[in-house]
Amino acid sequence: MSEYSIGVDLGGTNLRAAAIDSHGKLLEKIAGSTELQAGRDAVIDDMVQSIEKLRARLGKHNLRGVGIGLPGFILMDKGIIIGSNNMPEFDNYPVREEIEKRLGAKVILENDANAAALGEKWMGAGREVDDLVLLTLGTGIGGGIIVGGRVLHGQLGMAGELGHLTVVPNGNPCGCGNRGCVEKHASATAISAMARLIGLGHDLTSEDVYKLAQEGNDRAKMTFHSMGEALGVALANLINIFNFPLYLLSGGPLPAWDFFAPAMIAEVERRSFTYRHSPTRIEKATLGNEAGLYGAAYLPFSCEAARRI
Amino acid sequence: MSEYSIGVDLGGTNLRAAAIDSHGKLLEKIAGSTELQAGRDAVIDDMVQSIEKLRARLGKHNLRGVGIGLPGFILMDKGIIIGSNNMPEFDNYPVREEIEKRLGAKVILENDANAAALGEKWMGAGREVDDLVLLTLGTGIGGGIIVGGRVLHGQLGMAGELGHLTVVPNGNPCGCGNRGCVEKHASATAISAMARLIGLGHDLTSEDVYKLAQEGNDRAKMTFHSMGEALGVALANLINIFNFPLYLLSGGPLPAWDFFAPAMIAEVERRSFTYRHSPTRIEKATLGNEAGLYGAAYLPFSCEAARRI
Repeated sequence: MSEYSIGVDLGGTNLRAAAIDSHGKLLEKIAGSTELQAGRDAVIDDMVQSIEKLRARLGKHNLRGVGIGLPGFILMDKGIIIGSNNMPEFDNYPVREEIEKRLGAKVILENDANAAALGEKWMGAGREVDDLVLLTLGTGIGGGIIVGGRVLHGQLGMAGELGHLTVVPNGNPCGCGNRGCVEKHASATAISAMARLIGLGHDLTSEDVYKLAQEGNDRAKMTFHSMGEALGVALANLINIFNFPLYLLSGGPLPAWDFFAPAMIAEVERRSFTYRHSPTRIEKATLGNEAGLYGAAYLPFSCEAARRI
Repeated sequence: MSEYSIGVDLGGTNLRAAAIDSHGKLLEKIAGSTELQAGRDAVIDDMVQSIEKLRARLGKHNLRGVGIGLPGFILMDKGIIIGSNNMPEFDNYPVREEIEKRLGAKVILENDANAAALGEKWMGAGREVDDLVLLTLGTGIGGGIIVGGRVLHGQLGMAGELGHLTVVPNGNPCGCGNRGCVEKHASATAISAMARLIGLGHDLTSEDVYKLAQEGNDRAKMTFHSMGEALGVALANLINIFNFPLYLLSGGPLPAWDFFAPAMIAEVERRSFTYRHSPTRIEKATLGNEAGLYGAAYLPFSCEAARRI
């Protein structure tokens, strides 16, 4: 049996863990929910138990390492999370140290969107390239940047916070202190908010707005048009900066691609000479919810891992 | 004598060449003007003669290589330039091949702003870091991104076109096809245009506007305030993307730092959570006009060179 690693994807709703071998083959998976209301220690217990279960079944001998993807800014050198809006109890808590203590093994932490980008590079839409950017459209917008096959971290591991790129200088206010962050104009949440503003309804999800657009509702279509434009401004900037071959989108609003992509591409065409002169693909990510799990499992196999373990 | 290399900085106005040793010591320098009106071949002749002169004086034996910085998008694999507005005769011309033929030696081409960023990393304000972004404020705005001590090129060598970052979605039109590019709101040329719009005068340079600001002219101050805000939006986005320790500015408007920097920093503070939580410096570059020359000379000593020669 070849080496395997254990990846954990800790989200605000779901907690998943998987054993994946060095060729990207999923050996075993455990899926549960994140019991935030039970408190931080209970969530950490659940993670550690999932890892231990997989390790017991597949053996310690071939285990390369453990990687965990989780939301928030991760200060890589300290192994702590800051700014995780969905899991305030984890803020400034030495989560890596605590898990390592309970597990009796080293673990590698990574921001969830970075892990998803790495997963797409390893086994998803980015398999053929070494450089890509992923935007994950959800409650907010996460970002992951892969350069030369590795996650770009920056000095404290805070690189790739692409949800907070300014696309409308005096646009919607954001909890980060800015106005006009792309996540306030193009996330699933932003689609719901725009639908409400335009009188479509008070509690529509981005899926509901998508259904309305499919039924021919013009205001629903306008909502996706606005969302596409905002995404396009951010993507044009990213393309001008990186000149990468591939930019991926993932998340709940993806099925509405045909409604938002034309406006998005039109903005990119107009705003990026580089896009018009380089073979640049803007595509859907292919691993869906599994991207983060694959990326977390890839961490022990990647270059970063060699430095970290 | 230690190894040396020859760097050439070809601008729209000045043509400079220098022999610099592997420790960054300037051994000899030739400064002339770029005779664009004499035609492309004459400019290439001038470059080749400067290089040959330096090579004859310092000897072929210790020459590591030749690097040339020049404006425009450089398609790295083909050694041709596209989109060089100041030197249309060089567009789509196989300039690397031609120089190599006349010189009888390999040369490495690099975009001028990338070369300047590399120069600042080698011998200037970026000596202590491995990751930085440089913005050069001139007729337009150029950009260079250094990751892990090397220039970020992207797939065709078009990465780092930071002058075309959108900072005002429906702002001033740009020759690139976009509106609101940062170079249309924060370059030396943009300062002149704003000074004219606000009624300060028809043919003021950014230096003239700076003098007026120093004399207490409120409209001159407002001009730098606007310019600083536009730069701040671009810098906040770059900081959110990269989380690098250092962002450098260079070019003609730099002496007016005290007039534009407060607005610039205020925008960055507001728009970047990462800036507020990481030790991030935004500073003046220190090599001035020499940065590109040092960077060009460094090319043969850098990792890229090993792959290219």
